[in-house]
Amino acid sequence: MADKVTIATVAAHANVSRQTVSNVLNTPHLVREETRERVREAIAALGYRANQAARLMRTGRSHLLAVRIEPTQDGINGSVLDRFLHGLTEAAAPAGYRILLYAAADDKAEITTYDDLLATYELDGFVLTSTHHGDVRTSWLAERGVPFVTFGRPWGAPDSHPWVDVDNAAGTDAATRHLLDAGHRRIGFIGWPEGSGVGDARRSGWAAAAGPESADLARATVDGVAEGEAAARDLLSISDPPTALVCASDSLAAGAYAVVPPGVAVTGFDDTAVARVLGLTSVAQPLAEAAARCVDLLAGVLDGGTTPRPVLLPPSLVIRHSA
Amino acid sequence: MADKVTIATVAAHANVSRQTVSNVLNTPHLVREETRERVREAIAALGYRANQAARLMRTGRSHLLAVRIEPTQDGINGSVLDRFLHGLTEAAAPAGYRILLYAAADDKAEITTYDDLLATYELDGFVLTSTHHGDVRTSWLAERGVPFVTFGRPWGAPDSHPWVDVDNAAGTDAATRHLLDAGHRRIGFIGWPEGSGVGDARRSGWAAAAGPESADLARATVDGVAEGEAAARDLLSISDPPTALVCASDSLAAGAYAVVPPGVAVTGFDDTAVARVLGLTSVAQPLAEAAARCVDLLAGVLDGGTTPRPVLLPPSLVIRHSA
Repeated sequence: MADKVTIATVAAHANVSRQTVSNVLNTPHLVREETRERVREAIAALGYRANQAARLMRTGRSHLLAVRIEPTQDGINGSVLDRFLHGLTEAAAPAGYRILLYAAADDKAEITTYDDLLATYELDGFVLTSTHHGDVRTSWLAERGVPFVTFGRPWGAPDSHPWVDVDNAAGTDAATRHLLDAGHRRIGFIGWPEGSGVGDARRSGWAAAAGPESADLARATVDGVAEGEAAARDLLSISDPPTALVCASDSLAAGAYAVVPPGVAVTGFDDTAVARVLGLTSVAQPLAEAAARCVDLLAGVLDGGTTPRPVLLPPSLVIRHSA
Repeated sequence: MADKVTIATVAAHANVSRQTVSNVLNTPHLVREETRERVREAIAALGYRANQAARLMRTGRSHLLAVRIEPTQDGINGSVLDRFLHGLTEAAAPAGYRILLYAAADDKAEITTYDDLLATYELDGFVLTSTHHGDVRTSWLAERGVPFVTFGRPWGAPDSHPWVDVDNAAGTDAATRHLLDAGHRRIGFIGWPEGSGVGDARRSGWAAAAGPESADLARATVDGVAEGEAAARDLLSISDPPTALVCASDSLAAGAYAVVPPGVAVTGFDDTAVARVLGLTSVAQPLAEAAARCVDLLAGVLDGGTTPRPVLLPPSLVIRHSA
């Protein structure tokens, strides 16, 4: 770059070696006063700004936070993590941090990547998403004392690290109560197979509000539009079928909504673009706020070494014409 | 971190200063042979890996590429850039690069961010998206000799820098020919106001295939579902209305598709999740390939200093039941 001032430029201007400039920046007491002055004058005259290398040598802090970008799936539910990533990038800059992205096929590959990133970039910390039961990633980082925060609580290991989460059960509870208020008494649920923290929480919110009389109205399936369609057909084919369906995702809800007869209400989860276009009532997560709180917590750990309190954010129900 | 090996660990183990370890890594000829050997033995014994600071001091290369993340808009068209970002992250790692994200409200803010990022992180280069006429970002970077590649051609300034683009005109041309093949003769177009490179290219593909007899069937509006709905209503209200509508985006197409009578065909652009859920025929951009080619071009510039040839990729038409 033509007009970029580097350590080499400063060194040439002050007629010293690059190493001497580095010493003035990092260990000034080792440099003779006359030389130190000459280098400082050159720095001031050239408008040199300490670069990342010098900053790292001096502070041991890169001001880089790393976050995984997940593989693109159906573009519906995955869009939630993309929106979280937007929020993270926007919240990090004012706090003095930048976001470094990495991809990883699974948890094991992600841990290999941690090792590589830590050795190469001197990252300050990680923001993890998609926490789950028996998460090996968090224990790996914790054992090594690497600062991190998770978007998603530590399922089965309460408060073992700083986390931000959205109250998933409160979301399906609100959707179910909305349907009860509208007069529905047979309210079904389409969710995911048991064992996922998020999925189980979303089912529990529906179960608590719908009551034990609805216990036979739950169906579990892998996520997807076609799967939501199939589960809805199944629930509608029973005797005394439900008049409303609470779904654990907008993908499932989009499938269900395509096959239910008029008058059968459907709610989704995540307030995606698909929900807006289809007119689906859906539970919205405060993703920008969740991202900002993740940055706050991690910055707190990095600056103060304190153990911050976990943050549980309430979702909100966005009502459209499907329910 | 408990077991992380740093320059300080190596220095303590070899009983030398941190500066001496740094010298062994960067300017070994300045260090006495006996000391050099002792430090190298400590490095080997501890399994120390040269970190980013040392790497920067040695090579002047950070292996970081920066890309802007755009504000979340309606979650339909913006998802294209999110998918591009996924592809970029996945393609960068095998090539030895990582992606650093930044947000910027507009081009001017983006340039301020370049300045800050270059001073702080010694970035190797930038991947720019959403190029447009009179793009001040590319001229700023070019004037300073900062390596970059754009996803989107240099509108109005051909071949002034390495770029990768998708042939937008070929996409709407394919959609229009598909409609002609199905027997449609009055084919309308809903696009954006004149002046955007991408929008003008998408209109030109339709115009060439639909022929001059369709010249009165184009409508221009800002992007959005409601706007697509309004433009479709307008086109359908004329005498001898179109029987098919080619739209410049899935947002516009989703709006149009919601209001056209049965038998009127609609095509979108970008093959988003919304198009899949609505069953919209849509033009798909090869985003993962575009991202990989961007990394290739930029890595070529960084490694060889060559001026790589621009890359224009063909889109494909994904046919569903809307057309």
